[in-house]
Amino acid sequence: MWRNEKYETVPLDVKGIDEDNSKGTRDSLYPQTAVNESPKDAKLSPYFQDGLRRIDYVLTYHVQKPQSTHKQSSKSCLCCGFRREQKNPPAHEDPELAAQEQRLDYHEDDQRLRREEFEENLREMGLEMEKEEGVSPTVFSFTVGFIKICNLPENIMCERAYCDVPFCKFLSPSQGSSIVEKVNMFIQKVTAPLQPNVGENQTENEKPLSYPFSREKQHLMYVILVLSLQILYEQWASYSIFYKYQPIGLVRKYFGEKVGLYFAWLGVYTQMLIPAAIVGVIVFLYGCATVDDNIPSMEVCDERNNITMCPMCDRACSYWKLVTACGTARASHLFDNAATVFFAIFMALWATMFMEHWKRRQMRLNYIWDLTSFEDTESHPRAEYEFHVMKKSLKKEQSPKVVSVAKLIDYKSLFLFCSFVCSMQIFVTLAIVFGVVLYRVSIMTALHMSSTPTFRTNIRATVKTTAAIINLIIIILMDEVYGAIARWLTIMEVPKTDKSFEERLIFKTFILKFANAFTPIVYLAFFRGRIIGRPGKYLYVMGSYRMEECAHAGCLMELCIQLCITMLGKQLIQNNLFEIGVPKLKKMLRQRKIDKKHQEELNKTLHRHEKDHFLGPFVGLNPEYMEMIIQFGMVTLFVASFPLAPLFALLNNVIEIRLDAKKFVTELRRPIAVRAKDIGIWYTLLRGISKVAVIVNAFVIAFTSDLIPRLVYQYMYSPDGTLHGFVNHTLSYFNVSHFQPGTEPMEPMHLGYKVEVCRYKDYRDPPWSATPYEFSREFWAILAARLAFVIVFQNVVMLMSDFVDWLIPDIPKDISIQIHKERNLIVELFMKEERGKKYRNTIGDPSPQPLRSRPSSQA
Amino acid sequence: MWRNEKYETVPLDVKGIDEDNSKGTRDSLYPQTAVNESPKDAKLSPYFQDGLRRIDYVLTYHVQKPQSTHKQSSKSCLCCGFRREQKNPPAHEDPELAAQEQRLDYHEDDQRLRREEFEENLREMGLEMEKEEGVSPTVFSFTVGFIKICNLPENIMCERAYCDVPFCKFLSPSQGSSIVEKVNMFIQKVTAPLQPNVGENQTENEKPLSYPFSREKQHLMYVILVLSLQILYEQWASYSIFYKYQPIGLVRKYFGEKVGLYFAWLGVYTQMLIPAAIVGVIVFLYGCATVDDNIPSMEVCDERNNITMCPMCDRACSYWKLVTACGTARASHLFDNAATVFFAIFMALWATMFMEHWKRRQMRLNYIWDLTSFEDTESHPRAEYEFHVMKKSLKKEQSPKVVSVAKLIDYKSLFLFCSFVCSMQIFVTLAIVFGVVLYRVSIMTALHMSSTPTFRTNIRATVKTTAAIINLIIIILMDEVYGAIARWLTIMEVPKTDKSFEERLIFKTFILKFANAFTPIVYLAFFRGRIIGRPGKYLYVMGSYRMEECAHAGCLMELCIQLCITMLGKQLIQNNLFEIGVPKLKKMLRQRKIDKKHQEELNKTLHRHEKDHFLGPFVGLNPEYMEMIIQFGMVTLFVASFPLAPLFALLNNVIEIRLDAKKFVTELRRPIAVRAKDIGIWYTLLRGISKVAVIVNAFVIAFTSDLIPRLVYQYMYSPDGTLHGFVNHTLSYFNVSHFQPGTEPMEPMHLGYKVEVCRYKDYRDPPWSATPYEFSREFWAILAARLAFVIVFQNVVMLMSDFVDWLIPDIPKDISIQIHKERNLIVELFMKEERGKKYRNTIGDPSPQPLRSRPSSQA
Repeated sequence: MWRNEKYETVPLDVKGIDEDNSKGTRDSLYPQTAVNESPKDAKLSPYFQDGLRRIDYVLTYHVQKPQSTHKQSSKSCLCCGFRREQKNPPAHEDPELAAQEQRLDYHEDDQRLRREEFEENLREMGLEMEKEEGVSPTVFSFTVGFIKICNLPENIMCERAYCDVPFCKFLSPSQGSSIVEKVNMFIQKVTAPLQPNVGENQTENEKPLSYPFSREKQHLMYVILVLSLQILYEQWASYSIFYKYQPIGLVRKYFGEKVGLYFAWLGVYTQMLIPAAIVGVIVFLYGCATVDDNIPSMEVCDERNNITMCPMCDRACSYWKLVTACGTARASHLFDNAATVFFAIFMALWATMFMEHWKRRQMRLNYIWDLTSFEDTESHPRAEYEFHVMKKSLKKEQSPKVVSVAKLIDYKSLFLFCSFVCSMQIFVTLAIVFGVVLYRVSIMTALHMSSTPTFRTNIRATVKTTAAIINLIIIILMDEVYGAIARWLTIMEVPKTDKSFEERLIFKTFILKFANAFTPIVYLAFFRGRIIGRPGKYLYVMGSYRMEECAHAGCLMELCIQLCITMLGKQLIQNNLFEIGVPKLKKMLRQRKIDKKHQEELNKTLHRHEKDHFLGPFVGLNPEYMEMIIQFGMVTLFVASFPLAPLFALLNNVIEIRLDAKKFVTELRRPIAVRAKDIGIWYTLLRGISKVAVIVNAFVIAFTSDLIPRLVYQYMYSPDGTLHGFVNHTLSYFNVSHFQPGTEPMEPMHLGYKVEVCRYKDYRDPPWSATPYEFSREFWAILAARLAFVIVFQNVVMLMSDFVDWLIPDIPKDISIQIHKERNLIVELFMKEERGKKYRNTIGDPSPQPLRSRPSSQA
Repeated sequence: MWRNEKYETVPLDVKGIDEDNSKGTRDSLYPQTAVNESPKDAKLSPYFQDGLRRIDYVLTYHVQKPQSTHKQSSKSCLCCGFRREQKNPPAHEDPELAAQEQRLDYHEDDQRLRREEFEENLREMGLEMEKEEGVSPTVFSFTVGFIKICNLPENIMCERAYCDVPFCKFLSPSQGSSIVEKVNMFIQKVTAPLQPNVGENQTENEKPLSYPFSREKQHLMYVILVLSLQILYEQWASYSIFYKYQPIGLVRKYFGEKVGLYFAWLGVYTQMLIPAAIVGVIVFLYGCATVDDNIPSMEVCDERNNITMCPMCDRACSYWKLVTACGTARASHLFDNAATVFFAIFMALWATMFMEHWKRRQMRLNYIWDLTSFEDTESHPRAEYEFHVMKKSLKKEQSPKVVSVAKLIDYKSLFLFCSFVCSMQIFVTLAIVFGVVLYRVSIMTALHMSSTPTFRTNIRATVKTTAAIINLIIIILMDEVYGAIARWLTIMEVPKTDKSFEERLIFKTFILKFANAFTPIVYLAFFRGRIIGRPGKYLYVMGSYRMEECAHAGCLMELCIQLCITMLGKQLIQNNLFEIGVPKLKKMLRQRKIDKKHQEELNKTLHRHEKDHFLGPFVGLNPEYMEMIIQFGMVTLFVASFPLAPLFALLNNVIEIRLDAKKFVTELRRPIAVRAKDIGIWYTLLRGISKVAVIVNAFVIAFTSDLIPRLVYQYMYSPDGTLHGFVNHTLSYFNVSHFQPGTEPMEPMHLGYKVEVCRYKDYRDPPWSATPYEFSREFWAILAARLAFVIVFQNVVMLMSDFVDWLIPDIPKDISIQIHKERNLIVELFMKEERGKKYRNTIGDPSPQPLRSRPSSQA
């Protein structure tokens, strides 16, 4: 089992071995089988020294110098054991388990002894081995030992690589009616330039009929390992072919199903982003085109209206003219217009379509990759779990019956602890957001204090942008911290199997990173400017800080800036810095130990597996998935306020695919091929996000944008059925004599005239009514309309999503027909086989027939 | 394939045969295999005349008298054909298809010829037959012929009955830890008296390890038919053991999986209703206990408040005192209190728990019944479909390429047509509801006209109850009409397979019947009393009818009465009349032709299969499911307004199970055992209902009950934080001088004093405000609160449901472990088998080995 460095399962000190050794053993298991196909150079060939037996697997270990001389150049072939004798292998059948046991707690001294014992075990199982130690003693402070293995039992082989059980030649998929066929032909013609040149498109229509039993029919299996690194490098890991489909079949053959599914998923997601990006751009352009016809912003910008607004902060700020908010009002219209509602609905359906499309694609891949009957039955407990249980049972040996209860309590307390830490983390995130808010408020006040007028005009924009950038930096930093915390928590929980370990880890990481990424945005969308109180009775926090107000046209604009900076910044920084920069840096550090001239020499002399040993280890797909899922959240959750999000995501992903491909092909060791039928917990998370997206978008449209107030004004209050007078309607009156003492502006004559009544954005009764400054009837009516909109939007969109979900079958029609046909064919083959067997029986075969005892139907 | 009478697939006139014959052939296919086990009476034994060969299957046909003499007592054994010769059977392998072909279009004259041809075909397939005609020529105007068949090929047998492929002895399920074991033991002890005495509980812990291939491994199959009618009669179809679990295993063995699943589902549903009923009763009792402490009803009943209400109808009605609504107000509290919200949430979670519980139970049954690997692959087209396609292609022979397009258009138009008819039906339902409303309004007015005071006091109750009963009768009548329409529509659509036919039929029937059952309730809950206008400006429909008002305490009370009458009435009438009465009547009609003394004679002389021929045919499970699903709707959809619904449902279902059991055991022919893995589309419908239930209950609580106005008053308007003054707050003022001319009451002095201002239930501004009779600020605030409640309730409950769904695994832990273990065991067996085969190969077996060609792994 491959452990990734980032999500390493056990703290090193638990193992009782020091860093240096653990590194050696941790890097020790990786398959060598699939690295190269062109055996031009004998040195690089994956064969034993005799040039006949093919290497199936290579184990590596580090040896300290003093010891290494002992076994120097002991390139003797260690083949032993008969092929037939491996029928009843000893208990240690799995070399991995043995390796793990070996790994657990041995000291420097008896390392060699233990290694020899391990090798002896392998030999007993009938493996043939060739040992190679100390290839480059001049460059390293330690020697790297390689054990090349051939004659690996097929069941183990199959766990590590891609297996298949072909039965009979080919079965060409069913042909539809002539029209369908023609349409398909046309589509194929059109998309031909988009197909990668890997010469497998033709054969994708034909498929070997096979019946995969995974490990269950080992004797029928053989391993196909198409070594295609060069093709992948040219046709996949290149930016110049960004517009082409990925050669997923090849990726899967080389890297295994799990990696193949990731890239297939990324491909589908990117492909689906194209229509979303197009519609998003159209919506944005619609906003741009209609900005001049927008009555509310026209009214704001109209000097003749001459509306005096109440000050934005205590004392330092003074009254201001609404016309100065003209620019913001016009900009807000870009993201806050009627098309936004349409786009939010579109994106909710888009998310459902995407999920459905992926389900179908996954099913098709399952079929093509022969995984339809594959079931993920991995359930052997992790070594760390067994160690934990052993420790527990040793402790509680005096009362063995209480163990299960104790374990239960133990788990519960751990679970509670984890929940506590998680909520603490979310609290920390909130605190950070609050800190940024305070920063904004204080800077703003300070800037207002300064009297340079040119300085003041740019105040808002500067503060907004710097705050967003600070937020971004905090998000990126905390992301790393949270990742570490989630790992630590999961290790503390000691989950039983690797699968549950991974799922728990992913879930925790997801919760923390998601909260981290979205808390500032949620604050901006739903809380900012809503809990500010009113003039004369502002809400104060931390002594004398007034809560932030929104700009005149709502907080949508700021939400937009925040989203834009987070998306662009996160992607740029994380892509460039973490995905390109850090690996490059690590590689440099690794190679710094070897000086230049040795480098070249090494390149020539090193064997293929030796070179690969010095590549970066494969750290799992989780960080890649996590990045994409957060992006998916950005694209769907607040799409109502930022229609350009899909475009940004699309641009990022086109690069991301090739970037990841490059990384996989050139920078990392080939990961062990892991079978997987689906993308696991990530699908659940995607589904969760797309469900939450519906309600979040409903709230964004209803509460963050001004759509509902505009509609309510137009149909309930407007004298002529237009939006004329809307701005005046949204502004309440405040009598400046009602300011709390000490909060009135220092320069009341700032505008050049004495202000008696100023306006503020809220629906409250005027000072001269019976109930001054109470929420007005309009406030409640608009609130009811907003809430009604949320209910209608949520339920209509959910219904439509369910309908789309129901409309699109999960399994493509042709695939389900094909599966059915294949099953029939296999049954027929079985029948033929069985009939042959029966025939043999009748002519007298004395061997025992446990399966064929057919009871007579007459009881 | 068994056709049920109710959901017959093709209109008889299409077939071109007359009613009498079709009935004969329609009843003709039913298996005889499993009817009796105690062959005390040789006459009743399921053997051929020779007493050796067992009868597998019996076909029946009707012969007109003149012909019947011809073949009188031709009890010759028609056995022929070698057992070995059936290896390559002719094309007509399926006797069902042949029978259908035979059924299609033959005339009176050549019936016999065709029958003989058919029999010849069967004989060619190697079946052994015994013919028997005219057993009771004295009683009937026609003779019944029976063809008994033995030596039926196992694949056909398996389609008709329950098959199993046991591999090795037994596998006892895994034992949990000692505590779990003890808990299980305790549960078993406690529930022991609830277990039916069928002697299968012990063996349920042990299970033959088998690997079902359904039809695919026919050669390994043998048929287990445990003939257990007597046990079922005693331990299942009896009212006296209503408290016991059902012997589901036996039911499934006798009736097949599909019927077994229905009764298992009904059992789980009934069982789950127990906690719901208990909580519902507690909620109701809570209402009863707190009715005297309820401040609003106290205020209504307080004579000192002396509130004069506006008249309930134009001219005929006069002002009335609020105190007269005291009874209604008190009664309303029973169903409208704080516990209702809790109960609605409880029931939403209950529905989710029920679905989950059923999923697990189904999985367990799948495991016990060996269906885990079974896949429903029935896809051969229906004869009617093929006939339709043939007709089409004959018509369009000149332009064969257009067929598929034409078919497409054809289907589309049919689909549109169906949608149109369905919406027409819903419209009709609405019209009927409206008619009932008009009935209520007019009767009410008429009654008000009469001046007898004792008469008037009971007016409301009488009208409500009669209206509800009229509604009920209409619902029951229209139910039958809608059933017929749905069937007719589906037949017009000509679906391809039986499965799609059934699904479409169920879906249509469900939509229509559901709309029929729930439209009056929805009207009462959400529309009644909301669109009435206000005094002085009432809303009039159909000329001069004012829309109905609700009683003072909201419409919840009337909703309650309607639900109560619908549930009780529907269940009583449908159970008693349709399920007991009609079958009895039909049986009587059938037996009237035979006079008494013959009856007794017949009972003695008739063979078992001859007796069974005169039982009622099995009409499918759809009506049973439909009834239950509508009941499930009643229980979940409006449970917020009627907490006793689960209790009523429980009482009904306890009887329903035994009633259905009796019907299946004694009244109907044994249906052909049909395999099924799940309850199919019904599960989808249940899920849909439980989703809709959340939002419906949210709306009932928010809008139908007075909970939200009470809370808003208490926390926003109440001077002392209690509900004192709430009644006054809900009533608006109306100046009687503002009545429209001609609508003021004829007897304004009815109460003994001159009324200047009357009150009505609404939140509107008083006549003396600036905006008289406009919706007041309170109205909008309460509306906003109601809507906010809906959003919060819906999302919280949905989240909780999803959480429960996620928390409970779909497959019980022990079953999933067991399945895994079994798979491993089977693989081991396979491996052993294969190894044996390989061994044989090496010692030289010349037979071809298509499956064993193992490519060498060294390429």
